[in-house]
Amino acid sequence: MKTATLREVAEHAGVHTSTASRALNPETRDGVNAATARRVLASARSLGYQPNPIARSLRTNRTYTIGMLIPDLMNPLFPPIVRGAEDVLSEFSYTLLLANTDNDPDRERLTFEALRSRQVDGFIIATAWRSHPLTSQAVEQGLSVVLINGLVDGLSVPAVVADYTIGIERAVSHLVELGHRQIAFVSGPVRMSPGITRLTAFKQTMQSHGLEPLESLITVCDAWSEREGARALRGFLGGGTDFTAVVASDDLLALGCYDVVSEQGLTCPGDLSIVGFHDMPFVDKLHPPLTTVRVPHYAMGAESARMLLELLGQRPVNVRVASLPIELVLRGSTAPPTLRPGPHGAEHSSSGGCHRSWR
Amino acid sequence: MKTATLREVAEHAGVHTSTASRALNPETRDGVNAATARRVLASARSLGYQPNPIARSLRTNRTYTIGMLIPDLMNPLFPPIVRGAEDVLSEFSYTLLLANTDNDPDRERLTFEALRSRQVDGFIIATAWRSHPLTSQAVEQGLSVVLINGLVDGLSVPAVVADYTIGIERAVSHLVELGHRQIAFVSGPVRMSPGITRLTAFKQTMQSHGLEPLESLITVCDAWSEREGARALRGFLGGGTDFTAVVASDDLLALGCYDVVSEQGLTCPGDLSIVGFHDMPFVDKLHPPLTTVRVPHYAMGAESARMLLELLGQRPVNVRVASLPIELVLRGSTAPPTLRPGPHGAEHSSSGGCHRSWR
Repeated sequence: MKTATLREVAEHAGVHTSTASRALNPETRDGVNAATARRVLASARSLGYQPNPIARSLRTNRTYTIGMLIPDLMNPLFPPIVRGAEDVLSEFSYTLLLANTDNDPDRERLTFEALRSRQVDGFIIATAWRSHPLTSQAVEQGLSVVLINGLVDGLSVPAVVADYTIGIERAVSHLVELGHRQIAFVSGPVRMSPGITRLTAFKQTMQSHGLEPLESLITVCDAWSEREGARALRGFLGGGTDFTAVVASDDLLALGCYDVVSEQGLTCPGDLSIVGFHDMPFVDKLHPPLTTVRVPHYAMGAESARMLLELLGQRPVNVRVASLPIELVLRGSTAPPTLRPGPHGAEHSSSGGCHRSWR
Repeated sequence: MKTATLREVAEHAGVHTSTASRALNPETRDGVNAATARRVLASARSLGYQPNPIARSLRTNRTYTIGMLIPDLMNPLFPPIVRGAEDVLSEFSYTLLLANTDNDPDRERLTFEALRSRQVDGFIIATAWRSHPLTSQAVEQGLSVVLINGLVDGLSVPAVVADYTIGIERAVSHLVELGHRQIAFVSGPVRMSPGITRLTAFKQTMQSHGLEPLESLITVCDAWSEREGARALRGFLGGGTDFTAVVASDDLLALGCYDVVSEQGLTCPGDLSIVGFHDMPFVDKLHPPLTTVRVPHYAMGAESARMLLELLGQRPVNVRVASLPIELVLRGSTAPPTLRPGPHGAEHSSSGGCHRSWR
């Protein structure tokens, strides 16, 4: 199966072979004019040029493989993250070795060692744990690591996250603008960095609107799961504190809330507005379509790969956290509450709006 | 990071080191009593035993890596397939190298060569194309290949599929039992093996019930996509042939049908029953929840890995196709048609049932 040679790529792009070689190597690409580099890469792609990784490995003492640890490919967040990373890596002729850890420290450790003993050049680790000895040790030992989706407390390591704080701000502010005042929050686990970030953002945003975040309307879940989301909403409904809207810090948690809304014969958004977080595939097909915060998973995966390639370029790299922008997607699960004057002049939801009957 | 030694595993399991070694090696495990092998594997797991793959590679001339080609990780079918394969492979200390091909022959070829030059021990290829030169050449060259999700015409190669024919039979028979007679079929691309298999099964099942599969109620789509599903249903609605139910040969096609139902102000299942195929995650949350054929994706992925490990065991292997069982999951998108006596004594859907107004 013949593939194009470096010489053919250079001729196609109209450059010298040594220029083509530098342009094709991520570590030397900086020395080539950007437009030229793009032209060479386009030629390589159109001719099907494929550098020989074995020859390249011998020359560079690299394997051109990257290990990626994710909790679970079957969580809908991760496929686009993996795909984004793989698309960037394959452009640079790196191959991705993927492993699921189930957030289980033992499995994570075994997998990490398995990848390491295959001499991967670096790791992309998706962990949400705020304390993560494996990542800390890997960094101490000088391995190239980029974190995605979470940060490890006290560890200065390149990471890609989305601006979760802004996401929660948008969600809460949207509900406040619709007229909601009693807003419940379904938090993810606070031992995980996305969990604590979103919970903190919720409390701060409520206060910035002059609203008190009530402990009775905040539940910290044990997992990002539908079951936990359902448990949280059942707790609020049985808890005696009025509320007209829920911010769920993950779409799976929001799906659990949907289950309880239908199990209790309520309607969304008529009785209760619900906002999710992530914009998982197909939440636009739910009934009602879910208003949610869109997290740019594919772009995050791509950015993590670019960051790791930078690290591997052995250039001085500023340890940094890339925080990608985020937006609120308005759909059908949020609406103004039905309002009536409350006992102290404050506005309360009407009993016609049905939340009082939930107790 | 210290891991357990082979000797420690053997002591923990109460067996001789050579027995432990044979039990831990998938190629020699057959020579060990099954209960003993299980005990050794359990000990290895609990002690965190990790064979050194480099030493193992030198000894066996293997890399203990498997290349897996899939069309697109972002299609919800593939994450559980990949996860199933990875769970089995990791149990045998194999690592998975994953690559997306987008069903693009050029990208597929490049990726295949990249994996091959990394000397993977074998390939799991998810391709639906009935003609697939890459797989044919790989098999001719003696590479170890297992196909998943589709078969290649004229090629005798181990493969894992689900029993798609039974799946379609169940779907059609369910509708017939509900009283439907005019049933439309949204077919996937017939250049793909799952496409032609399901289309053939649809026609045969209709005939087995004494019903004529009408060409005007069959559309062959160009892709397994929501857009194509929507196009197909719009075509039926504008086509002048009455129908009361649709079998979509893929859930994404069914989702496209849902879009058209709501765009045209129809109701499902009131005006139209819809059956999907695959049981993708979250189709139970749709409105209405989708009645669909459940394909055991995780089990298929796991079986493909077991089959490949058998091939690599260098024992005589019967080339075979594993066809895993399949079931119909009844949910809310199917119901009896509203019936009235038709012009020739045949039963027709009532105009109140709204399908006549679709023209």
